Amino acid sequence: MSHTLRLTGRLEPRGAWTAERCPIARTLQVVSTRSAFLILREAFYGTTRFDDFAERVGISEPVTAARLRELVEHGLLEREDYREPGQRTRRQYRLTSRGAELLPVLVALMQWGGRWLDEHGGPVTLLHRECGEPVSAELRCAAGHHVDDEELELAPRRRTATD
Amino acid sequence: MSHTLRLTGRLEPRGAWTAERCPIARTLQVVSTRSAFLILREAFYGTTRFDDFAERVGISEPVTAARLRELVEHGLLEREDYREPGQRTRRQYRLTSRGAELLPVLVALMQWGGRWLDEHGGPVTLLHRECGEPVSAELRCAAGHHVDDEELELAPRRRTATD
Repeated sequence: MSHTLRLTGRLEPRGAWTAERCPIARTLQVVSTRSAFLILREAFYGTTRFDDFAERVGISEPVTAARLRELVEHGLLEREDYREPGQRTRRQYRLTSRGAELLPVLVALMQWGGRWLDEHGGPVTLLHRECGEPVSAELRCAAGHHVDDEELELAPRRRTATD
Repeated sequence: MSHTLRLTGRLEPRGAWTAERCPIARTLQVVSTRSAFLILREAFYGTTRFDDFAERVGISEPVTAARLRELVEHGLLEREDYREPGQRTRRQYRLTSRGAELLPVLVALMQWGGRWLDEHGGPVTLLHRECGEPVSAELRCAAGHHVDDEELELAPRRRTATD
C-alpha cells in the first residue's frame, strides 16, 4: 500500500518544483532542537521557572538559557519578571497564543511515541474533560470529515486578490 | 490567558513527578533532526530515490545516507532494491505504516508554519479529495468532539489487567 499524498495541479510531478517557503522547514527553524520541543512540553505542563525547565527537561543551565532565549525571541514564550517578598527578582516563562498553537504538534508526537515506542501506550493520556474520552491529533477537513491518508490531496494554494 | 493543560490524579502538582518514558521525547529520539522530518515530508510527496531525497531536501550525500539509514533502522522507511533494464541496481525508499502514522505531526508543523511564518499561509494546501475542503490536524476526542486547549486534561494512563 502506498502512503504518498496525491499531488495536484502544478505540483504533479514532484520533480517539477522545489519546496520553497516550506512551512514544515520554517517551523523546524523556529523549534529546531529536541530540547526546544521538551521545553514547550513543560510549558504546557505548567512549568514556568528557569530551574524547573532545566531539571524537568534534563538539560544544563547554559542549554536551558539558550533554548528559552530562542523561544522568547521567536515569540513562543513570553518572559515575565516577578519577585516574592524578601527574594531576588526571578524570571518566569509562559506560552503565548502563538506558542500554544503548537499543541497539535506535541500531541501528535506524543500519540506516535505512545503507540510505537511504549508497550503500554505511554505513561500519560490526554482526556476531554467534558466527556472523559481520550484525545488525539487527527486529520479533519473544514467540513468536519475525518480524513484518511488516501483521501488527501496536496494542491498549490490559491492566492486571493488581496495577497 | 493560561495555555497550560490541567493535570489530574498523581500528576498534580507538576513538581511531584518526572516525565519518565515520555513519548514525545522518545519520538524525537527516532526523528531527531530537521533533515529527518524533511526526508519524511519528501517520502509523503512521493520521492523514493536517494539522489532525489538529497536534492529536494537540500542536504549532502553523506547526510542523506545517514538519515535514510536511521529511518530504515527505526522502521519508518523500507528499502527496496530495483533495477531497470541495462542499469545498475538502485535503492528506493518507501514509507512503512509506522512511518506513515507520523503524518499528523507533519501536517501540524505545516499548518503552524503556514499560519505564523508565511504571510500568504504557505505555498501549498492539503485538501480533502471528496469535498475539496482544507484539512488540518486538530484535537478530537474518541467521542468525536472537537477539543479546545482548556478542555484538555492530562491523566496517568490506567494499566489494564493484561499489562
